[in-house]
Amino acid sequence: MKITEVKLILCSPSRNFLTLKIITDQGVYGLGDATLNGREKAVATYLEEYCIPCLIGKDPFQIEDIWHYFYVGAYWRRGPVKMTAISAIDMALWDIKGKALNIPVYNLIGGKSRQKILVYAHAEGKDIEETVDRVGAKIDQGFLAIRAQSGIPGLEDTYGVSRNNAPYEPAVRGNPKESIWDTDKYLNHIPRLFKRLREVYGDDIHLLHDAHHRCTPVEAARLARELESCHLFWLEDAVRGELQEGYRLIRSHSTTPLAIGEVFNTIYDLTTFITEQLIDYIRMPIVHGGGLTHLLKVAAMASVYHIRTGFHGATDLSPVNLAASLHFDLAVNNFGIQEYMPHQPLVHEVFKINYEYRDGHLHIDDTPGLGVDIDEEVAKKHPYQRAYLPMNRKMDGTVFHW
Amino acid sequence: MKITEVKLILCSPSRNFLTLKIITDQGVYGLGDATLNGREKAVATYLEEYCIPCLIGKDPFQIEDIWHYFYVGAYWRRGPVKMTAISAIDMALWDIKGKALNIPVYNLIGGKSRQKILVYAHAEGKDIEETVDRVGAKIDQGFLAIRAQSGIPGLEDTYGVSRNNAPYEPAVRGNPKESIWDTDKYLNHIPRLFKRLREVYGDDIHLLHDAHHRCTPVEAARLARELESCHLFWLEDAVRGELQEGYRLIRSHSTTPLAIGEVFNTIYDLTTFITEQLIDYIRMPIVHGGGLTHLLKVAAMASVYHIRTGFHGATDLSPVNLAASLHFDLAVNNFGIQEYMPHQPLVHEVFKINYEYRDGHLHIDDTPGLGVDIDEEVAKKHPYQRAYLPMNRKMDGTVFHW
Amino acid sequence: MKITEVKLILCSPSRNFLTLKIITDQGVYGLGDATLNGREKAVATYLEEYCIPCLIGKDPFQIEDIWHYFYVGAYWRRGPVKMTAISAIDMALWDIKGKALNIPVYNLIGGKSRQKILVYAHAEGKDIEETVDRVGAKIDQGFLAIRAQSGIPGLEDTYGVSRNNAPYEPAVRGNPKESIWDTDKYLNHIPRLFKRLREVYGDDIHLLHDAHHRCTPVEAARLARELESCHLFWLEDAVRGELQEGYRLIRSHSTTPLAIGEVFNTIYDLTTFITEQLIDYIRMPIVHGGGLTHLLKVAAMASVYHIRTGFHGATDLSPVNLAASLHFDLAVNNFGIQEYMPHQPLVHEVFKINYEYRDGHLHIDDTPGLGVDIDEEVAKKHPYQRAYLPMNRKMDGTVFHW
Amino acid sequence: MKITEVKLILCSPSRNFLTLKIITDQGVYGLGDATLNGREKAVATYLEEYCIPCLIGKDPFQIEDIWHYFYVGAYWRRGPVKMTAISAIDMALWDIKGKALNIPVYNLIGGKSRQKILVYAHAEGKDIEETVDRVGAKIDQGFLAIRAQSGIPGLEDTYGVSRNNAPYEPAVRGNPKESIWDTDKYLNHIPRLFKRLREVYGDDIHLLHDAHHRCTPVEAARLARELESCHLFWLEDAVRGELQEGYRLIRSHSTTPLAIGEVFNTIYDLTTFITEQLIDYIRMPIVHGGGLTHLLKVAAMASVYHIRTGFHGATDLSPVNLAASLHFDLAVNNFGIQEYMPHQPLVHEVFKINYEYRDGHLHIDDTPGLGVDIDEEVAKKHPYQRAYLPMNRKMDGTVFHW
Repeated sequence: MKITEVKLILCSPSRNFLTLKIITDQGVYGLGDATLNGREKAVATYLEEYCIPCLIGKDPFQIEDIWHYFYVGAYWRRGPVKMTAISAIDMALWDIKGKALNIPVYNLIGGKSRQKILVYAHAEGKDIEETVDRVGAKIDQGFLAIRAQSGIPGLEDTYGVSRNNAPYEPAVRGNPKESIWDTDKYLNHIPRLFKRLREVYGDDIHLLHDAHHRCTPVEAARLARELESCHLFWLEDAVRGELQEGYRLIRSHSTTPLAIGEVFNTIYDLTTFITEQLIDYIRMPIVHGGGLTHLLKVAAMASVYHIRTGFHGATDLSPVNLAASLHFDLAVNNFGIQEYMPHQPLVHEVFKINYEYRDGHLHIDDTPGLGVDIDEEVAKKHPYQRAYLPMNRKMDGTVFHW
Repeated sequence: MKITEVKLILCSPSRNFLTLKIITDQGVYGLGDATLNGREKAVATYLEEYCIPCLIGKDPFQIEDIWHYFYVGAYWRRGPVKMTAISAIDMALWDIKGKALNIPVYNLIGGKSRQKILVYAHAEGKDIEETVDRVGAKIDQGFLAIRAQSGIPGLEDTYGVSRNNAPYEPAVRGNPKESIWDTDKYLNHIPRLFKRLREVYGDDIHLLHDAHHRCTPVEAARLARELESCHLFWLEDAVRGELQEGYRLIRSHSTTPLAIGEVFNTIYDLTTFITEQLIDYIRMPIVHGGGLTHLLKVAAMASVYHIRTGFHGATDLSPVNLAASLHFDLAVNNFGIQEYMPHQPLVHEVFKINYEYRDGHLHIDDTPGLGVDIDEEVAKKHPYQRAYLPMNRKMDGTVFHW
Repeated sequence: MKITEVKLILCSPSRNFLTLKIITDQGVYGLGDATLNGREKAVATYLEEYCIPCLIGKDPFQIEDIWHYFYVGAYWRRGPVKMTAISAIDMALWDIKGKALNIPVYNLIGGKSRQKILVYAHAEGKDIEETVDRVGAKIDQGFLAIRAQSGIPGLEDTYGVSRNNAPYEPAVRGNPKESIWDTDKYLNHIPRLFKRLREVYGDDIHLLHDAHHRCTPVEAARLARELESCHLFWLEDAVRGELQEGYRLIRSHSTTPLAIGEVFNTIYDLTTFITEQLIDYIRMPIVHGGGLTHLLKVAAMASVYHIRTGFHGATDLSPVNLAASLHFDLAVNNFGIQEYMPHQPLVHEVFKINYEYRDGHLHIDDTPGLGVDIDEEVAKKHPYQRAYLPMNRKMDGTVFHW
Repeated sequence: MKITEVKLILCSPSRNFLTLKIITDQGVYGLGDATLNGREKAVATYLEEYCIPCLIGKDPFQIEDIWHYFYVGAYWRRGPVKMTAISAIDMALWDIKGKALNIPVYNLIGGKSRQKILVYAHAEGKDIEETVDRVGAKIDQGFLAIRAQSGIPGLEDTYGVSRNNAPYEPAVRGNPKESIWDTDKYLNHIPRLFKRLREVYGDDIHLLHDAHHRCTPVEAARLARELESCHLFWLEDAVRGELQEGYRLIRSHSTTPLAIGEVFNTIYDLTTFITEQLIDYIRMPIVHGGGLTHLLKVAAMASVYHIRTGFHGATDLSPVNLAASLHFDLAVNNFGIQEYMPHQPLVHEVFKINYEYRDGHLHIDDTPGLGVDIDEEVAKKHPYQRAYLPMNRKMDGTVFHW
């Protein structure tokens, strides 16, 4: 089998998605998500100008060779743009292999290790009581695990909390929105939220929280410790992760489980986290973390150190990535949980999916390959529009982590 | 697909081999090597009495689930007998999946990362000059890498050196042979061998040596250092490996590449070796190291630390294991080298193979599955006969590592 | 003295036991327990086919030599099957030496360091209150140390808790029972149990708990921390132990004493645990941990690091092992405690013992050797029947640690 | 002052360069190099679509704020594409500030710490003797430091060595060239080269060598050790650098100074290298390493650990980057050396420079700002043409590091 054509489909059914389509001489094609929220066109150019010419003529079954060809071949290693491009290629190749062999991808990477995939939902409110209500609404929908974010008194905007009851989509058109942030207000507020949630909903529901890179290690250590009695499923992105040893302090002060990785791209962002057991869950997604090929290796290494997967799954990753994640989630033994933030209905006019939510879990059928398809005609009706993720500034104006 | 029958074939075409055959309701069957040299029947009982009853009715495609079922399910973890049983099951399941999907196994585990598999041959002589001649004979056969072992002046028997020009097969019938060992004679002798080999054959041929667990760390450090100028491809099993940190001393004293693992069974035998980069090549074979499923994980972790594979491939592993190794060797990026010690012709009356040696490399064809078959009728003509690997004692009678 | 005959007795007086009997030319014989729960026949084959032929003719007094002969001689090191075989041989040799010298074994390994052996009993209940009652019943029987396990709300089955008031025997006939496990429910429940036990019974009674390998390090750290105020004697098997450094996190978060080792086989499973002082008690039993010979060395090294023994003593180890443990417990200075789970009465029709429970302790008399005998005629009436330990799966179907 | 317009100039005067031009309301403009060899257009899109809209209206003097705005603002951190974009912006802002204040940039970042900048030249030959000649030619040109690369017997192509006496430019049009690599041949050859060079030219000339990421740690340790007596100024990129601790082994075996960093992007690629003092020179260039702003911090931290700068300066970085490097090199105390590979004459028809080579050093005049200008009209005559850096494969076909 040979690759004869490769297309890029950039569309915006409510938000931007970049999809790679690799087509073979036998008519089988594969899809890969290449969406890098707020930087979509950089990935498109990387693929269009530099990867696609090299893909033509290659045998799509040689996935390991092709992965290293692009990883090593660019000379310049790692990074979100490059690794998203590689991830998209890798996903599409696995899709092709599954379709060519008439088998779902999970059956190529170990088979089913479980029957269904535990997911966590998002609940958010402008204040504690509204968040409590929203968590309750998710419980009513059967969710067993819920990430709770809340507006912070004194701050107009907070990551994870939408305004005007719209679905939360942080990327906005026009220049990046700049919000004001104050970590001290946040640190004072969050433990109250989770104490209240435990009071109302008891011990059995899994509660998660995303600090979104905004604490220093000592702040995160304080937060993680004050949340210990609330028994979080995890505290996510407590501290920005470029310096892996930055988590030693948090780890030494708290038994609150820690998750990180949604902005990571390769195993090298994780080696110290893993071997020093500084975290409990890896969130690096298929779409940015080198595809199934690389993440299988990451999960293998993580499993030795009692670390599980808990992949990023916000709506800025397309249904192609979510499907790939679900195949992965079904197959690896050290799966932990999957983030699940449903796409807007318009997204599903473009992307035809093979998974569904039911009783706190996602379920995927046995369609060969990844099981997701794209309607290119519908996609064309929703052209790309530039949108940026927001910015944070501290109260004195300092650029800060969003 | 369901597993309906599982058979064990224990035969001795010149030496003992235990083969597992898993048969499905669709007629497809898979083979796994279960040979544990000198302990074959213990594995047979482990499989027969404890694993086979649990395999019946299972879906052979759920390889990851089945692997963990047997690894976790026995409660008692690790060890050569158990892990050989699991490895045999795993190999047979991959063979089934390949056959069912009509594809060679290498195409299920990443596809081809290379076109041919570099192997190393064994050369041995009763003294330096005979070893030099034998190395020359291997060079004439086109080998690019040769492991040289030599008789030691003052010692009647040495690991790796046959007597009477017979093919080297250390396992013998009757009770274990007891040889006399003296490390000091060995340490004085080996550097002379390799200096001579370099004088005669120059720098381009890859030379390897197996110390076979017989040095202490400080002895190994001396040896590795004295061999530095000979530029070995590797020094194997310099020190027995139960205590991984035992290699720190060697590593700190020499840049001679180090290989270990032929008596290991799981990643847990290797974590310190890998993360502290104490070795350069992992030799844990498919048949004892948890099958393709586990070794893919081991290789993934090793790749992060610049460590390559160099699998054990002596004749005490059956052609089923060698085929499985070759699929693995073709597929993973961080393959290094494959040991290749050809089986006696009688072995190939029982096992039909799909690989061949040519120009310093092994080549495997694209037969679906592992590509090896067994002729059970011929196997029956060569019934198992107990044979033991030899023993060593020091000159004063102390039990020592063989 | 020479070994002239070696027999294996596999019987099932309510549960399976494998016993090794080494007979000498002077009529003295020794017994060794060779039971590996759920894998008995694999050990039997290992001994029968590979060890027994080598034992014939050996001098049974050369225990150190014979130990290394089998440890080194198999080439393939460590692991439960092999080490159980070696342990059985070792125990039987000590039994012979004691009988030949007309002295109890404890007097060959240092003499009595104490007069009686502190034991802990098992108490279990379907819920907290039943567990509280059962602990009370054990206190009434004079036990000073009690391991408490309790059913978990929402889980049908839990390790350590029998159903229908039957004596707890987890191994069952037919294929392995698969239970459903959820660590979060467990973590929420156990601190309540121990807080209640302390309320009811005060501070003086020793309380122990077995997490049975089911926590990740961060979960275990949380549990150990939340149990701190309950002053456990120990928390056992908090995390599966293949990765020794996995205990660093627990250790850094809690002063709850930790025990591990019932699935270990050699000192190499313990070196990091010991030298980093990650645990307080070693549970590796005589029957799986290389016999008295190897465990004397393990205890010696442990004593340097303030670590004591606390041997596994469930009913899946035969009275021969328990007797051997008691000799050991009497003799070594750094003895801590001995698990004691009485065998069913039928067991004692087969095994004649020399120990008895009294006032919270086990007492052993001064019968020469180990002091236990086997009635082979009665044993024959209770033939082996395959039984498996159970399996766990998580609520989504994932294979999990039992 | 406000930014009113930002332009990208992508041209190919003999090779591709991407230049960012930031124009202010006061007519002052600044230039930044944005060239990422073989991936130029991905950076162009990143800048064009995502950065330039945000730059308009900003005050160009707020360099620290703007740096963090783009580093933090993209959410997705690090990586060659993103960091090249930021570096270009940063360079242009420094250029503007210098011009606006009528002062060379070096005077904004500390002033002159030295009068001239030690550089090293490239010398290469198809074999040892030709390399020796070329080194001699460079000595004749007054160079005090020379990097020597040589063709390897048995390999058709080698990094750093041009064919047919053409200037060495590895990026080629059409699909990536695939060369064959064999580390062993390389390791046998290079020490001979440097021994010969020292024989011919004595001890005073600085000799450097670039292994270009192709050794494993143990191979690099061997090489570094065998080169010790040749007293290299440095051995560059001995091992690929994603795993920083990979250099521990090399460091422990040799006193050959080590340099790394030409493919790095942020300080986070260097923290372990620096704090463990695993290297001696940092090569991360202004154009890929976050601009002057970020590299001033990197150099500051490096100075604590006795580490100096030795910036990448091949012809795939434009004269804008070289000028920026020279300002930096003049200013920081812990400057070590600057790579200098002169551009083709055609390059200087597009880029007007203010530096010149003389007596082994580069000299830069006191033109305000960076001192380099671009002739956009000439640039237009040399449109971008896609070119790729080459690939390596091992002799068996494995993708390998180029």
